[in-house]
Amino acid sequence: MRYELHYWPGIQGRGEFVRLALEEAAADYEDVARGRGGVGAMQRLMAGKEIATPPFAPPFLVAGRRVIGQTANILFFLGSRHGLAPAAEAGRLWVHQLQLTVTDFVAEIHDSHHPLGPSFYYEDQIPEAKRRTADFRKERAPKFLGYFERILDANGPWLTGRRFSYADLSMFQLVAGLRYAFPKAMKKLERECPRLIDLHDRVAARPRIAAYLDSPRRIPFNEDGIFRHYPALDG
Amino acid sequence: MRYELHYWPGIQGRGEFVRLALEEAAADYEDVARGRGGVGAMQRLMAGKEIATPPFAPPFLVAGRRVIGQTANILFFLGSRHGLAPAAEAGRLWVHQLQLTVTDFVAEIHDSHHPLGPSFYYEDQIPEAKRRTADFRKERAPKFLGYFERILDANGPWLTGRRFSYADLSMFQLVAGLRYAFPKAMKKLERECPRLIDLHDRVAARPRIAAYLDSPRRIPFNEDGIFRHYPALDG
Repeated sequence: MRYELHYWPGIQGRGEFVRLALEEAAADYEDVARGRGGVGAMQRLMAGKEIATPPFAPPFLVAGRRVIGQTANILFFLGSRHGLAPAAEAGRLWVHQLQLTVTDFVAEIHDSHHPLGPSFYYEDQIPEAKRRTADFRKERAPKFLGYFERILDANGPWLTGRRFSYADLSMFQLVAGLRYAFPKAMKKLERECPRLIDLHDRVAARPRIAAYLDSPRRIPFNEDGIFRHYPALDG
Repeated sequence: MRYELHYWPGIQGRGEFVRLALEEAAADYEDVARGRGGVGAMQRLMAGKEIATPPFAPPFLVAGRRVIGQTANILFFLGSRHGLAPAAEAGRLWVHQLQLTVTDFVAEIHDSHHPLGPSFYYEDQIPEAKRRTADFRKERAPKFLGYFERILDANGPWLTGRRFSYADLSMFQLVAGLRYAFPKAMKKLERECPRLIDLHDRVAARPRIAAYLDSPRRIPFNEDGIFRHYPALDG
């Protein structure tokens, strides 16, 4: 089946967690909004006149007659179809639980440059972003990274043990994104999570991921996505 | 099986979405942290020395030998065991997708009084909270409520059609919480989502929910939870 991925065309954003899973699975997919008329098609589906179960926001995946929204939910769906999650229910829910913790972390990463919410530009909330990010670097990022490091320590070599899963792809993306956004802060933070850094490197070296990262399909990080490099916020 | 629910004892918070499901299911459960020594037991499980798969944060559910974290993940687990979600995969993922959109909304509701993050007290971020909440009342709350209203209009009488699900319980909690936190703003907002208000009333009238709301097991709303009534933020 050829999947349709619908997501904003100019950014990695939340859609990137789905792109990484599709690439690792060597799935046949179209990144719809990056093609001609694709953003309009995406917005029509969200408007809900064509389907009774529209997603609230991108990313969403069209799989045959199904339209599946919410990043972690899409990964749950893809994981069991493409061997990127354990087969048994307990394992599937555990990987999903980790992914939902990634979701929480991503929301806080986004809030670091948008503490007053998504309706205002970064330029309209710089002092607030500085205050929030100082705390993010000092308290929140170490707490999340430390949690994943601890899980890896107890269960490695992959996040859920011997079997690779989509949660490992998400760990790669978190480390890559944080390095882009906070190069100075990450230098320090990385010392406390060597297993996570090693995991990042092993994911980056997987043949399909390496090929993807090297292709034009991988949109470069930029200041419209979740991970934004604003030197003023890097301490 | 007797479940153990682990959550902060003094607030409804995210744990309330789980409590409502357990109550509607007439499940046998213990709200551990509300008993003697319960907070310590909760923190020991999170510390991860007893289990290799600790949750990042409460709430979490102990079900036999399993420990399941993340509110939406717990509901996914309970939903299929207690008839609070469709049996088929497509329906289960759709209910879950709605719940994850509730998760996003809840995060924004929390951020309305904590725009600088969870490490600072509300009293240390009142001007920022006012700015964020003004936008929340004007843009974000209508957008989320309007989305759920539209889903209900297309699929009612319950959120996913003829069958009641845990997502309906969460809608009840959202409306009840927003009414507590923003009584003035909600008076206006409610005019635009009559189906959602009607759904709230039908959930509140369900015998097990009505009995629960009337019991000491339902912790009153207060200014330590997600839904906080600060008149300065109500416009």
